[in-house]
Amino acid sequence: MPNQPADSFNSNLALMTDLYELTMLQAYDQLGFDREAVFSLFVRELPEERNFLLACGLEDVVSYLEGLRFSDQDVAYLESLGLFGQDFLHRLRSFAFTGDVFAVPEGTPVFANEPILEVKAPIAQAQLLESFIMNQVHLQTVAASKAARVVHAAKDRNVVDFGLRRIHGADAGLKAARAFYAAGVTGTSNVLAGKLYSIPVYGTMAHSYVQIFADEREAFRSFAEIYPGTILLIDTYDSLRAVETIIELTETLGEDFSISGVRIDSSDLAELAVNVRRKLDSAGLYQVKIFASGGLDEHGVARIIRQNAPVDGFGVGTKMGVSEDAPYLDMVYKLTAYADEDKIKISPGKETLPGQKQVYRLEENGTMVGDVLCGHDEKQDGRPLLRKVMAGGARLPESQETLEDIRHRAAREMSLLPEPLRYLSPAAEAYPVHLSEQLAARQAALLEKHRA
Amino acid sequence: MPNQPADSFNSNLALMTDLYELTMLQAYDQLGFDREAVFSLFVRELPEERNFLLACGLEDVVSYLEGLRFSDQDVAYLESLGLFGQDFLHRLRSFAFTGDVFAVPEGTPVFANEPILEVKAPIAQAQLLESFIMNQVHLQTVAASKAARVVHAAKDRNVVDFGLRRIHGADAGLKAARAFYAAGVTGTSNVLAGKLYSIPVYGTMAHSYVQIFADEREAFRSFAEIYPGTILLIDTYDSLRAVETIIELTETLGEDFSISGVRIDSSDLAELAVNVRRKLDSAGLYQVKIFASGGLDEHGVARIIRQNAPVDGFGVGTKMGVSEDAPYLDMVYKLTAYADEDKIKISPGKETLPGQKQVYRLEENGTMVGDVLCGHDEKQDGRPLLRKVMAGGARLPESQETLEDIRHRAAREMSLLPEPLRYLSPAAEAYPVHLSEQLAARQAALLEKHRA
Repeated sequence: MPNQPADSFNSNLALMTDLYELTMLQAYDQLGFDREAVFSLFVRELPEERNFLLACGLEDVVSYLEGLRFSDQDVAYLESLGLFGQDFLHRLRSFAFTGDVFAVPEGTPVFANEPILEVKAPIAQAQLLESFIMNQVHLQTVAASKAARVVHAAKDRNVVDFGLRRIHGADAGLKAARAFYAAGVTGTSNVLAGKLYSIPVYGTMAHSYVQIFADEREAFRSFAEIYPGTILLIDTYDSLRAVETIIELTETLGEDFSISGVRIDSSDLAELAVNVRRKLDSAGLYQVKIFASGGLDEHGVARIIRQNAPVDGFGVGTKMGVSEDAPYLDMVYKLTAYADEDKIKISPGKETLPGQKQVYRLEENGTMVGDVLCGHDEKQDGRPLLRKVMAGGARLPESQETLEDIRHRAAREMSLLPEPLRYLSPAAEAYPVHLSEQLAARQAALLEKHRA
Repeated sequence: MPNQPADSFNSNLALMTDLYELTMLQAYDQLGFDREAVFSLFVRELPEERNFLLACGLEDVVSYLEGLRFSDQDVAYLESLGLFGQDFLHRLRSFAFTGDVFAVPEGTPVFANEPILEVKAPIAQAQLLESFIMNQVHLQTVAASKAARVVHAAKDRNVVDFGLRRIHGADAGLKAARAFYAAGVTGTSNVLAGKLYSIPVYGTMAHSYVQIFADEREAFRSFAEIYPGTILLIDTYDSLRAVETIIELTETLGEDFSISGVRIDSSDLAELAVNVRRKLDSAGLYQVKIFASGGLDEHGVARIIRQNAPVDGFGVGTKMGVSEDAPYLDMVYKLTAYADEDKIKISPGKETLPGQKQVYRLEENGTMVGDVLCGHDEKQDGRPLLRKVMAGGARLPESQETLEDIRHRAAREMSLLPEPLRYLSPAAEAYPVHLSEQLAARQAALLEKHRA
């Protein structure tokens, strides 16, 4: 698997869970609750700033489930808490995931209440997974959904992920880079993400490089000599004066000074790009591209494009990296069946749908027109979105995808979205997701029973 | 070191860097730039929603720097990019950090432009670190600064971190839990964070536990039997009806049914708490505490406290976990000296201060009254904040702190903050940070030189 994540980030993470999962596990164990449960992972409501979500993170769930084990060290720590008995701790040593997982393929647009993933397994197993698989699918779905907007705003220009330094931690630095690439970003500055996921890596110079030279001219000359065809950062002192220096170097050194572009990183980027372009063109440097970075998000990118500013590519960092306008989703992992019996939660505003489910997506003339959310064994028009990716704890071929496969799917699937859903502003109407009559009736019956 | 972070999260991370750090490194190498540089890590501007920041993350920087090495695999990947020559790749194999690090101790309040950390090392070494140390200090400072507000809002009530499931990734799940605890949070639900950092762990049951039982009564009875003195989650179906069940169980089972509290997790928490308290008290269950969770942040906590709602503790998850109102800081790592010469960046609005620095903090009657930002060898009134934590690449005793030490410092230091800075609303006046005359003159001279 070329796109397998770093071992160090997904292994030995059995304790990366909330304590209550383990206290519940011991209770299930003592009380003999060992029948099969179904849990469903979904987003209750989309943030106002998102018209669709791009499902992402499944690969990390599967690789985590394949390797999930409690070490002696883990068990010793749990013992030290004084909450767990010897019988239970002994059984944890032989814990392994033996269940089934059904999921929407990564790179598929999803909407409120649609299961992204369902787990069918003995209750203890299905329960324990909650915290970690939410942590992973949440992060990557947040990241892919944000990046899809930036890529859309940039039209056909390149977008490079510059987020590592302010993304939340090292794991997110990798996983978000993966999700961004799935969503259509061109590449990343994060070298380890490039290595682990075969994502193209980009980067040339920072301000510090320019600063250690007595003058900018020598910084530019030396860097272009070492990296012919490079991109020079021009805003350390004065961007327009830096362009004059580049023109002078080109005229003086000829073929010994070759660059492919310049990067601007401060001020009004659109205005600065116009002035930089004009200066470059006046010297015949038509082939030198302009790359813009600095505080950009999809709105900043869209503004530059709307103003027809001559920017050929974007470096997008922090605001995409932390998904600044919507840093979290109302994602939950809820019990929907136990021992073949439907289960729901009826807390006000948090009612859930019962049972194992399927989503059918209808298309007309190359556009998605509506989804039907139904029981997993119902048959509806359209194509089913959830597919089985693990059986009896083992990975199925359906989950053997490369990141390129996922990236292609995302591009194809997003091209099917109704136009208004792709805009950056909130769509006037949400995408239609209907409950099947049968599923609606099952939910109503349970609500009535519990509220009686 | 009891609080050493997980090996798996800080080792083998030499490639967790932006590509441009490595292209610059090769250029420095080829051009013979090997003199000592000073880089300064600081926040340019505080978010509107923060009156102070709580510095955090140093321990991970030190442990990363101690172990920083490029493996054969790392070098092979870099070779595959076609950007790097054999000489440089060969030298990377023996790369090690041999520099000095100066830092503000973790748990210290800091303000705009004050160095949190400074690195003094041969330029290549000091450069390479940028991406990873920012990634770590940024995350933990974001997290500690947010948690400090939640803890303040909760007054003397407990606050438990419930964030793992929606925090961005596994590394942040651990590091944020650490930062939250440093800032005064009582504990975490994250078991691995508990194990790695000796943080108290908390948690009892989720909705799914209640749901698998035919009735809530049996769910409560069985759980309290296994975990006497536990906290029961009461909002799966109807919170007030659940309290009636608890009262009935207490009356029927006597000492065989003992709980210490109930958790409410939906609806208007303040109003619900009042009604739950009334019902509990009417049955004489005065000792049963009420724990509230569900969509809380510092403002939600403050509202509950302001309404005098009888809530004894808070579970705070997502909004603290992603620092929802301020998910990033304008933190940068800038070259300030090379070969004993002052360096600055003069990009409009992004001007930096030159040289290695110190911050002196003045107190009067147990309150901080102002800081002076000056050259590292200047002497000012007050106490200096930056201290040497690594020398010649080795950890100094000054950085050998336990998380408890840091937590105590944070509590002590925050008690010195001027009152208005501790409020949740933006302070009318920012905390006064003055430049020393000497440092201001050095900056002015450089600005004049570059703008001439």
